[in-house]
Amino acid sequence: MLRDKLMNMLNEREEEMISLRRHFHEYPEISFQEKETSAFIARFYEGKEVEVHTHVGNGYGIVVTIKGKNPGKTIALRADFDALKIEEQTGLPFASKNPGVMHACGHDGHTAYLLVLADCLIRLKDEWDGTVKIVHQHAEEQAPAGAKSIVDSGLLDDVDEIYGIHFYPDYETGTIFYTSGYAYAGCSDINVHIQGTGGHGSAPHKANDVIVAASSFVMNLQTIASRRINPYDMAVVTIGSFEGVGSSNVIKDNLILRGDARYMDLEVGKVIEEHFHRIGRGLAEMYDVKVDIEYNSDYPPLYNHPEQTAKAIAVLEKEGIGDYLDTVVAVPANTGAEDFGQYLLKIPGAFLNVGARPEQAEVFDNHHPKFDINEKSLLVAAKAVGDITLAALLAK
Amino acid sequence: MLRDKLMNMLNEREEEMISLRRHFHEYPEISFQEKETSAFIARFYEGKEVEVHTHVGNGYGIVVTIKGKNPGKTIALRADFDALKIEEQTGLPFASKNPGVMHACGHDGHTAYLLVLADCLIRLKDEWDGTVKIVHQHAEEQAPAGAKSIVDSGLLDDVDEIYGIHFYPDYETGTIFYTSGYAYAGCSDINVHIQGTGGHGSAPHKANDVIVAASSFVMNLQTIASRRINPYDMAVVTIGSFEGVGSSNVIKDNLILRGDARYMDLEVGKVIEEHFHRIGRGLAEMYDVKVDIEYNSDYPPLYNHPEQTAKAIAVLEKEGIGDYLDTVVAVPANTGAEDFGQYLLKIPGAFLNVGARPEQAEVFDNHHPKFDINEKSLLVAAKAVGDITLAALLAK
Amino acid sequence: MLRDKLMNMLNEREEEMISLRRHFHEYPEISFQEKETSAFIARFYEGKEVEVHTHVGNGYGIVVTIKGKNPGKTIALRADFDALKIEEQTGLPFASKNPGVMHACGHDGHTAYLLVLADCLIRLKDEWDGTVKIVHQHAEEQAPAGAKSIVDSGLLDDVDEIYGIHFYPDYETGTIFYTSGYAYAGCSDINVHIQGTGGHGSAPHKANDVIVAASSFVMNLQTIASRRINPYDMAVVTIGSFEGVGSSNVIKDNLILRGDARYMDLEVGKVIEEHFHRIGRGLAEMYDVKVDIEYNSDYPPLYNHPEQTAKAIAVLEKEGIGDYLDTVVAVPANTGAEDFGQYLLKIPGAFLNVGARPEQAEVFDNHHPKFDINEKSLLVAAKAVGDITLAALLAK
Amino acid sequence: MLRDKLMNMLNEREEEMISLRRHFHEYPEISFQEKETSAFIARFYEGKEVEVHTHVGNGYGIVVTIKGKNPGKTIALRADFDALKIEEQTGLPFASKNPGVMHACGHDGHTAYLLVLADCLIRLKDEWDGTVKIVHQHAEEQAPAGAKSIVDSGLLDDVDEIYGIHFYPDYETGTIFYTSGYAYAGCSDINVHIQGTGGHGSAPHKANDVIVAASSFVMNLQTIASRRINPYDMAVVTIGSFEGVGSSNVIKDNLILRGDARYMDLEVGKVIEEHFHRIGRGLAEMYDVKVDIEYNSDYPPLYNHPEQTAKAIAVLEKEGIGDYLDTVVAVPANTGAEDFGQYLLKIPGAFLNVGARPEQAEVFDNHHPKFDINEKSLLVAAKAVGDITLAALLAK
Repeated sequence: MLRDKLMNMLNEREEEMISLRRHFHEYPEISFQEKETSAFIARFYEGKEVEVHTHVGNGYGIVVTIKGKNPGKTIALRADFDALKIEEQTGLPFASKNPGVMHACGHDGHTAYLLVLADCLIRLKDEWDGTVKIVHQHAEEQAPAGAKSIVDSGLLDDVDEIYGIHFYPDYETGTIFYTSGYAYAGCSDINVHIQGTGGHGSAPHKANDVIVAASSFVMNLQTIASRRINPYDMAVVTIGSFEGVGSSNVIKDNLILRGDARYMDLEVGKVIEEHFHRIGRGLAEMYDVKVDIEYNSDYPPLYNHPEQTAKAIAVLEKEGIGDYLDTVVAVPANTGAEDFGQYLLKIPGAFLNVGARPEQAEVFDNHHPKFDINEKSLLVAAKAVGDITLAALLAK
Repeated sequence: MLRDKLMNMLNEREEEMISLRRHFHEYPEISFQEKETSAFIARFYEGKEVEVHTHVGNGYGIVVTIKGKNPGKTIALRADFDALKIEEQTGLPFASKNPGVMHACGHDGHTAYLLVLADCLIRLKDEWDGTVKIVHQHAEEQAPAGAKSIVDSGLLDDVDEIYGIHFYPDYETGTIFYTSGYAYAGCSDINVHIQGTGGHGSAPHKANDVIVAASSFVMNLQTIASRRINPYDMAVVTIGSFEGVGSSNVIKDNLILRGDARYMDLEVGKVIEEHFHRIGRGLAEMYDVKVDIEYNSDYPPLYNHPEQTAKAIAVLEKEGIGDYLDTVVAVPANTGAEDFGQYLLKIPGAFLNVGARPEQAEVFDNHHPKFDINEKSLLVAAKAVGDITLAALLAK
Repeated sequence: MLRDKLMNMLNEREEEMISLRRHFHEYPEISFQEKETSAFIARFYEGKEVEVHTHVGNGYGIVVTIKGKNPGKTIALRADFDALKIEEQTGLPFASKNPGVMHACGHDGHTAYLLVLADCLIRLKDEWDGTVKIVHQHAEEQAPAGAKSIVDSGLLDDVDEIYGIHFYPDYETGTIFYTSGYAYAGCSDINVHIQGTGGHGSAPHKANDVIVAASSFVMNLQTIASRRINPYDMAVVTIGSFEGVGSSNVIKDNLILRGDARYMDLEVGKVIEEHFHRIGRGLAEMYDVKVDIEYNSDYPPLYNHPEQTAKAIAVLEKEGIGDYLDTVVAVPANTGAEDFGQYLLKIPGAFLNVGARPEQAEVFDNHHPKFDINEKSLLVAAKAVGDITLAALLAK
Repeated sequence: MLRDKLMNMLNEREEEMISLRRHFHEYPEISFQEKETSAFIARFYEGKEVEVHTHVGNGYGIVVTIKGKNPGKTIALRADFDALKIEEQTGLPFASKNPGVMHACGHDGHTAYLLVLADCLIRLKDEWDGTVKIVHQHAEEQAPAGAKSIVDSGLLDDVDEIYGIHFYPDYETGTIFYTSGYAYAGCSDINVHIQGTGGHGSAPHKANDVIVAASSFVMNLQTIASRRINPYDMAVVTIGSFEGVGSSNVIKDNLILRGDARYMDLEVGKVIEEHFHRIGRGLAEMYDVKVDIEYNSDYPPLYNHPEQTAKAIAVLEKEGIGDYLDTVVAVPANTGAEDFGQYLLKIPGAFLNVGARPEQAEVFDNHHPKFDINEKSLLVAAKAVGDITLAALLAK
């Protein structure tokens, strides 16, 4: 039986997954600068019967194509490999050797399990039909991010379904949790530059005060969430940075606002953007200022396609529970952002969360300098994604 | 001596002035409806050697031209004759016989003294050179008011100087008070119609809430006075009426704001108007509403030309004090509005205030239902304007 | 079989339901003034072996207690009987005979079906155990509404479960639709009176402008929905009426705002109320005005208890479909308000919607002057509520 | 004649004034750090028959008392001696030797002329009656400034009149210009610290957004100038610095606003302060934030007492014009601030402006790195203040 072989192979290579994860953990590289990480991944595939594309998209993305025995469906599996600008404080023996950079979001584990799973699928490729594309994605953490550029490369145009996972230490190892439909919030990053005319506090009529204009802008922006969005839809507009530092008695001539918008539906995101620009244009007219808005929506809401999600969960419940899984839980949507949503705009699929609670008492959230995962979750992830992949390849 | 003759004639006809004033007081007519009043005035001039234009401008305006012996300067004198929609409460024997209408601003007196003064000047016309134009103005109290339309008639195009007075019971009879330069505020009357989209309180995203848009408008309007005007200049923008009455749970689709702007300098008035329109356009864009603004500036700031004012005051101090005047006082500008300012935009001149405190204890302000003037002020006004007119005719 | 007997009795009395409904339709009475309607209902129960309480709560509420053969569970069924201030335009032969009053929300039908169902249950009372309480509720349409006062009467203290229905002509007759959990929005009705100091547009510093204060209030209120509520929760605050009518050049001394808040969770409603009052207190301080807020939350969110809802739906699916029902559909929550939520705060139960689309083409929504229901829906409602009641009485 | 002697002495010592001015210019010291400058001044008076107080007030202030022959009036003359944090760019041979510090406001000249004038008055003290107090003031440029502390020292309690001057290169040398009454604006320096609760952009309800609160504050502050102040009074409130720099997706927990208020009447300044605090308290309540306001009014409006101003101008017109002056001009008030106003709150007097346009073409305003004065203005100032002093001493 193919599945039994795959599960056995994964069992036997658990140590390798851990070792790979520790290697990546020790040598983290920040988004768009993952030169050594991507080279390491490329070397991993050397000499194997696969097609490898490197430098895919707007960075060090890698796409590996594994062809099975006969033509069939094409299934993509994605893991990201970039790290964060965080100074690690875990004290682990394999802690980061790159000062100020840390794998504090589990991407080391994502890549480690997927490399081993990919190699197992390569070794077994005469036993399955269809194609598996392994997507090693760069730059998930930082806009404009890598996912959209990999989609735009065309290398995934023939993909039928795509799957990915994320480790979370706040759920027990042995748990998979998920949301069908909208699962992660979309997030637009926004910069607003307002240009007026400087002057002195004694002569406001000769100046054009951008602090007043920007304050009015912030107040009027509140009406997007309060009046423009269906109250049943999730929508937030935050100005997190009001950069108007100056002298008490001088009227500033320009300033910058930075903020973000969050939404759980692509259409809601568009309504927010439309009104944000509208209010900006209105402000320009109202206060005779120049308003330049940079509005970047690199992280759309991540929409787990219900059919693929249901199929994946069904497989996990059937094969995983009682084997490598204790529970599979539907959870409410996550307000975080994840650029896997870019793949799902074009390709049916699902993105699942894998519990990775360390055994020691204290748990640190993703992006914390003491973040860690339970390495037992690597095997869980490999098996779960393995099961989903085999089921997807076999489906009519 | 011409002046002595004029003063004596005025003395002799004081009773007639009082009688005329009481007649007008008894039959008041509101602005633009002064049919009987104007007919009475026209009849007064019948058979006299003058040129009479009736129905001048946008109403019942009358301009009477009196030519002196030889050509010379042309001096205009103006009195207004409209009344107010006020129910009189004076209990005077000659109180208004027209219910709900009252001469509560002294225009009855203005017209009475000027008719007698005009007739004296007619009788003496062989003893002076030049031309006197008597302007009996309709509709001073209500926009669009009569003054501008009389100016636009062209009948005053040849006028060298223009003078007028107003009675105020809060100053002693025997006093004339004045302001050189800007003396009365300009006043623009403004209506704003905002059209959005109605809807139900449970679905704000399907409506376009004009109450929120109008509230933002009011807040942003505050910046005109606070940031756009030289802080040494007088400027006020008031929204006096926010007409957004509806149901608590229904989102209104339109509303009206009514307000006014006040300013003591024509240029300041233009800056206010410019920014008012700008904020309105900005609002339309910001909230996707239709904003229609009617902006009427029928009452410009009344600017007493310093040269003419100084000449008039000099005459009064020389001839009047010790005779018919006790004092002449320079006072700060008045925040009220007076459309005599329209004449002074085109013609040099001055507008003076004549004290008219009644002898009984209590004084009621202009526009009060118990407003009254001291009828002795009629002769004061006639003599003062007579002196100013003779001096102006004689000046080089 | 008890159920067969009940269904047959209902079949036989369909004409009576229709006749009752037409009677109520012809003589509608507005909320809190349902004197004749309640007397009619009370007469209906005369001579029957039931306990009848009239004048229950804050109006003409009636509670009828029907005791079965042996003690058992107590189930309450509620129908409301008040009408609306709407001038009927249906042209029906049984159109309203009370000018300006109309049963435009189907309460006539609610009461008609429940009277017949109640009578059938009375006739069969030796065949079932437990107690049925029939709640004929006055004043559903108008705050403070009747439901809470009936709960507060104590007459329902021993009720185990409560059920009710509402007709909607926009769903097919033969359909029942429902929402488990929060099903109707909570609605708070709010009046805000702001008292400042009047004055003239030329002297803002001597007045205290309530239009500016109220505009600031409206803008700051936007932050409740935009910043104070979990973006996944439904929350709307609308000011529907800004009652600040005055003169363009006079600064108003007081005005009234009217609005409402809507929310789908009682806790969210409390957060809105807390911040509404907070912003009001802040405004009073900021603008030195007096702010009086009347905040009435008579319509809490209607929460269908999931267990009772599931049981009711299970019965309908088992007994109703293929018999008197075509479909039973779960639908998203309704943003309207319904004071049945007051019962469900204390008593488990469910409120279901009964499709009542008339056969002719055009459908008019509830509260429309041409609103009508398909009278076939009366029998559907009676049978559905009959089935739910029998199942509830029988359940352990 | 005393006056002739004084004028001659001043003529003879013009070179010394220039030399002193260049010395001060070369060794500027910033406000409150004028250790060497004050020591230099103190040494200047060593051995002279005067009483010298050093370290007066909150810094290096010096008060020198010169007694005339017989008792009489006490006249104070003030010159300030602090410099600014400006990197000089004049290229003058006597340019600043203290990097980053510059006499860019003419205080070097103020002190230079007054030292020489004081010494002349000392030498002539047997020829005049009364007392002259020379006030060498530290720290005019920086709040809390020196003037108030010198007043509070009590050393000027017996002063009858006080005079001072300021050099301005934008008026011709040989001109003195002045404003009777309010002549320089009052200025309050304001810091506002707003403390809320930080959080993440995805969960605004768990945070308390200070950027929104501060934006509302800025908008509501506009109503001070627009609605709270007599429109004929000068009033400006500026927020020059909105210090809310943060991350686009993080809700800030605190920020600082810095601004100033300007006004030409002490009472207006109090009204602004009262409403500023009121709006701050309202904001704290409205947004549940902590609002701390530091409000410093160290620079009151400078009020030139009309009687003293008139006397001073009369002397200058009589003695100066045709001698050391070309013209004396009344000018509108200056919107800048000057702590000489502190003296005038307690002591009658006047502060005049002395034209000091350099002979080369280009003129740089006070506080410009290329600012310079015409050194001929030193003698003009000395003679003008000398004339005023003698006249004041002689007056009854």
